[in-house]
Amino acid sequence: MLPRSARAIARLLERLPGVGERTASRYVVHLLGADPEVAQALGRALVELHQHVRPCERCGNLAEVEVVDAPVVCEVCADPRRDPTLLCVVAKVSDLSAIERSGAMRGRYFVLGRLVSPLDGIGPDDLPLERLSARIREDGVREVIVATPPSVDGEATALLLARELEALGVTLSRIASGVPHGSELEFADQVTLGRAIAGRRGV
Amino acid sequence: MLPRSARAIARLLERLPGVGERTASRYVVHLLGADPEVAQALGRALVELHQHVRPCERCGNLAEVEVVDAPVVCEVCADPRRDPTLLCVVAKVSDLSAIERSGAMRGRYFVLGRLVSPLDGIGPDDLPLERLSARIREDGVREVIVATPPSVDGEATALLLARELEALGVTLSRIASGVPHGSELEFADQVTLGRAIAGRRGV
Repeated sequence: MLPRSARAIARLLERLPGVGERTASRYVVHLLGADPEVAQALGRALVELHQHVRPCERCGNLAEVEVVDAPVVCEVCADPRRDPTLLCVVAKVSDLSAIERSGAMRGRYFVLGRLVSPLDGIGPDDLPLERLSARIREDGVREVIVATPPSVDGEATALLLARELEALGVTLSRIASGVPHGSELEFADQVTLGRAIAGRRGV
Repeated sequence: MLPRSARAIARLLERLPGVGERTASRYVVHLLGADPEVAQALGRALVELHQHVRPCERCGNLAEVEVVDAPVVCEVCADPRRDPTLLCVVAKVSDLSAIERSGAMRGRYFVLGRLVSPLDGIGPDDLPLERLSARIREDGVREVIVATPPSVDGEATALLLARELEALGVTLSRIASGVPHGSELEFADQVTLGRAIAGRRGV
């Protein structure tokens, strides 16, 4: 049985994805056995994390806050070598990171933050469709790649986007075979994700 | 690619046991998507961890610092229902925790902190043998259970303890090594099966 303060930290660590009671205890015992500076450096960084990292105001990707009160723009949106006419729509930041690792995307991104999910009561109105339309118009986007996951909610969201964006006159495509049905994008390997990007088809 | 501050935290998280680059990134992205209070509470607790939790001055187990400047004693050493004449010697705190979870130990513990390991240059002088002897004499310990792991270093440490503690007149025992509960005999390695046979008992 861990001492009270160590148990309190273990319980906080259990909120991390895939971390159960046993793993959380191992982490705490490890930190207690290591140089106190390790736990303290991690602690100080965590306290300040949300001050230093914010969602990009253009795409929703994670971005470093470089200047206080200045607009927060991520590395991808700030990169002038990216094709502004190609936009990849993803459900969440970890999916964006997975596609970036594949190196197959030369355009920019838009993070929806969620998928339509009738079972969870998430409908079209809960998605940032107006911000997406505005982004498409402002940047003169010509092709939108829908990279939502190949799940029921992901496909429903792709269909919704196809309907919503029809009037904007953009080419809409969907990442193709290569990503196994029902799996999470963030766990797909780089080659699979690369093929999915290269093999996209019209919706 | 995570923003700079997020990458810095991911690198610190990679020091935790079993955490690689991918897992560390997932943890950070999860924290950034959650209520900032989660990361901040975890951060504050980590900064203070080593102030609140110290090694027990009697056994080396982790203990809560209840009163500043008072001796730090763990729950097990402070529990009057524990048999003071039975002492279980373990290599590390996580081994102590595992034995506590089994509920099979009604005595107290002594954490060595390390095992003799000729390959790593750790000899008998690097182990707290004098503190162990003093503890045995002070508490009137009658039986010492050596619960070091059934590895080369663990067995060497058990032999060293048998030699060192001989003059103290205590009964020395070693935890049984054999086929684990619920496992298949056909998948057990030869050494384990050999020990299971050699350590057989009457039914």
